[in-house]
Amino acid sequence: MERLEAYSNIAAVSTVAKICNIIVRSDEGITRAELARFTGFSKSTITQHVDTLLSSGFITQISLPDKSNGGRTSQYLKLNKDCGVVVAIDLGITSLHVGICNIMGEPLAVKCIENINVNEGPEAILQKAVSMANDLLEELNVPKRRLLGVGMGVPAPLEFSTGRPVSPPVMLSWDGYSVKEYLEKAFGVRAYVDNDVNIMAIAELWRGDARDDLNFLFIKLGTGIGCGIISNGNIYRGSNGCAGDIGHMKVDGFTHTCYCGNIGCLEKLAGAAAIQERAYELARNKESPYLEKLLSQGEEITCKSVNAAVTSGDISCIELIRTVGGYIGDVVSNLVTFFNPSKIVFGGGISNFGDVIINPIRKKIYGSCGSLATKDLQIQRSRLGENCGVIGAAILVREELFHPKEFTKVLSSVLEGDTAANGK
Amino acid sequence: MERLEAYSNIAAVSTVAKICNIIVRSDEGITRAELARFTGFSKSTITQHVDTLLSSGFITQISLPDKSNGGRTSQYLKLNKDCGVVVAIDLGITSLHVGICNIMGEPLAVKCIENINVNEGPEAILQKAVSMANDLLEELNVPKRRLLGVGMGVPAPLEFSTGRPVSPPVMLSWDGYSVKEYLEKAFGVRAYVDNDVNIMAIAELWRGDARDDLNFLFIKLGTGIGCGIISNGNIYRGSNGCAGDIGHMKVDGFTHTCYCGNIGCLEKLAGAAAIQERAYELARNKESPYLEKLLSQGEEITCKSVNAAVTSGDISCIELIRTVGGYIGDVVSNLVTFFNPSKIVFGGGISNFGDVIINPIRKKIYGSCGSLATKDLQIQRSRLGENCGVIGAAILVREELFHPKEFTKVLSSVLEGDTAANGK
Repeated sequence: MERLEAYSNIAAVSTVAKICNIIVRSDEGITRAELARFTGFSKSTITQHVDTLLSSGFITQISLPDKSNGGRTSQYLKLNKDCGVVVAIDLGITSLHVGICNIMGEPLAVKCIENINVNEGPEAILQKAVSMANDLLEELNVPKRRLLGVGMGVPAPLEFSTGRPVSPPVMLSWDGYSVKEYLEKAFGVRAYVDNDVNIMAIAELWRGDARDDLNFLFIKLGTGIGCGIISNGNIYRGSNGCAGDIGHMKVDGFTHTCYCGNIGCLEKLAGAAAIQERAYELARNKESPYLEKLLSQGEEITCKSVNAAVTSGDISCIELIRTVGGYIGDVVSNLVTFFNPSKIVFGGGISNFGDVIINPIRKKIYGSCGSLATKDLQIQRSRLGENCGVIGAAILVREELFHPKEFTKVLSSVLEGDTAANGK
Repeated sequence: MERLEAYSNIAAVSTVAKICNIIVRSDEGITRAELARFTGFSKSTITQHVDTLLSSGFITQISLPDKSNGGRTSQYLKLNKDCGVVVAIDLGITSLHVGICNIMGEPLAVKCIENINVNEGPEAILQKAVSMANDLLEELNVPKRRLLGVGMGVPAPLEFSTGRPVSPPVMLSWDGYSVKEYLEKAFGVRAYVDNDVNIMAIAELWRGDARDDLNFLFIKLGTGIGCGIISNGNIYRGSNGCAGDIGHMKVDGFTHTCYCGNIGCLEKLAGAAAIQERAYELARNKESPYLEKLLSQGEEITCKSVNAAVTSGDISCIELIRTVGGYIGDVVSNLVTFFNPSKIVFGGGISNFGDVIINPIRKKIYGSCGSLATKDLQIQRSRLGENCGVIGAAILVREELFHPKEFTKVLSSVLEGDTAANGK
């Protein structure tokens, strides 16, 4: 019956929720006439429900020139971006970004800690995040009743419905902990928790360069390497919530042992730690004049140092990054052959190497995939920057709150006047 | 706007089409009360539309004991499997199966040619298929007006909407030919054409062992190697219709040149031709007593001979198949890490080696994938046998004809009395 429920999702929601979902997802606004065409509902049905939505404060309308109407203006309906705010949290293995965003995912204010340790455990870390969020809400002078929800990304596979990490390889102390429950108690609103690369893929889908793509991959290159999968315009999480764990796909001909217990994993060869380790070797062996100098000055060598070396033209560092790009390209080529995406977007700290790392990836893909899979394929770096995760966490809240299954409840609580949307 | 259209599909269909879709997909039948619960429609709406559907002949009802009703019987609504028939065609690189099925995908009669050559070109092959289908319709004494549609699988990537193969690597003469149009002209009904592994995945989804799986892979091992992908209960075709082309994913450390122009492709190492080639070597080198004897008798050595050798306990042939299984396992392990399916079903001629080929695949997967991705994973051989493709081609017709977007048109033409469903 589980499958039948998945199929029947298309029907088991109220008309107003369906109309609202289309308006929200229209992003740039939609006229009543277009709504009627897209939904198949009559104009009077549309009018009636749009009136309800306008009075709820979730939806707003603006006058814009309408191309299909001889250049006269039409009323465009769209999500009211000021209907409330969202707490958006992006937890990395070593960093914590907390933002307050509007419901469109636009950050209003963001705070960041760059050197946390996730293995302090969930409560210590979550307490930090909550306190950072509360500070921001206070700075922005936002009353709590305007808070619509909380979204969070964590660097672990998890069960989406309960918001619990499941067998997380790099943050064992979080195993089974209900992050969702903690956040809902702390803020008194709905909370949604997802894998960090999934929220970044959602950010690209709605605010990045993949806005016209139905099937694409977001690949995060950082301490960990992971992939967010968008299939038919929706996030794909897999049967156990661990789809896209490409840091543990195998690279040809390598026998390095990974912390996961297997050998030849991509992350072990191309993650930040691998780059850093190899950079120290280049410094010690005097292969890189730039890094050798840093080492002799007693400075720590990080991926940022390697990037500075690359920018300065240090050949051994350029070669190192090209080699790493080749490893990534080997794995991603197989993804292209299997998944046939229309776009691949690279994000995460290691993507800051730009074309020096992306060109060797491109070369592998074009060199080993079929022409049909590559002829329209776009391969690029994310342009959302370091707030990508925060933006995605905020949009996750929008996606879930306005999901047709959820929205009927959300709407009636607002119409009864007890929460955010009208509380300006 | 393309993406918005994808999202708005959930709304832009008639109520009767939605109700019908749930009934059709309920497979084992659904009560009016369950329908109301699944769809959110009122009982009177359900009653009204169910009456229409019953009068159309597409839907039927049966009395069955109802567990949720104290053991009393309830009326279960289900697809009327005798509402018409479907022509189902499964084209392989070297074989052609043509069947007449009921709309549930159950074959009523099947004919098969085992040694065709797809490169005779589309018209020669399609003419054969049409003539075989017409013979079967005649033998079964089915009047043409009972024909609901035609479904066909071809071993090529294709554009699903137009039914045209796109850059097919092994059947170049079919490039751009509208198979769909040919079939629609030949039979005077709607035709749907898909990749061969996709229709087999559809067969497993509805008639095979993957009936409870939302995310699974069907892998065909034969002359070609390909993968049908089911994502959230629906077939996933990729951006250019070539998703799942895993025969051209790379196997560690091999430099064999493939007909696609690349090196190290799985198909070149584990396809039927590779097995046959290696089998001839085993015969010539006298490593396999069984095959050596065949060769000395002047017989052709095929994969079937190798299977007979394996069954007879010929160690070198068992080793050959285990090695081939290892290559397949290398590639499929990466798919498990990326896609996190709940099940993998193997079909195609080479899967007839059974556990001799599947055990080494299992070994690779369990040996190199994370525990979360493998803890619930089932890996098995298809039990649908050689009619798998025919069954899938028939169900493809059911899926498309009863798709909420299409069904409104289908229903009104039937209610106007001019086609199949009532024409018994």
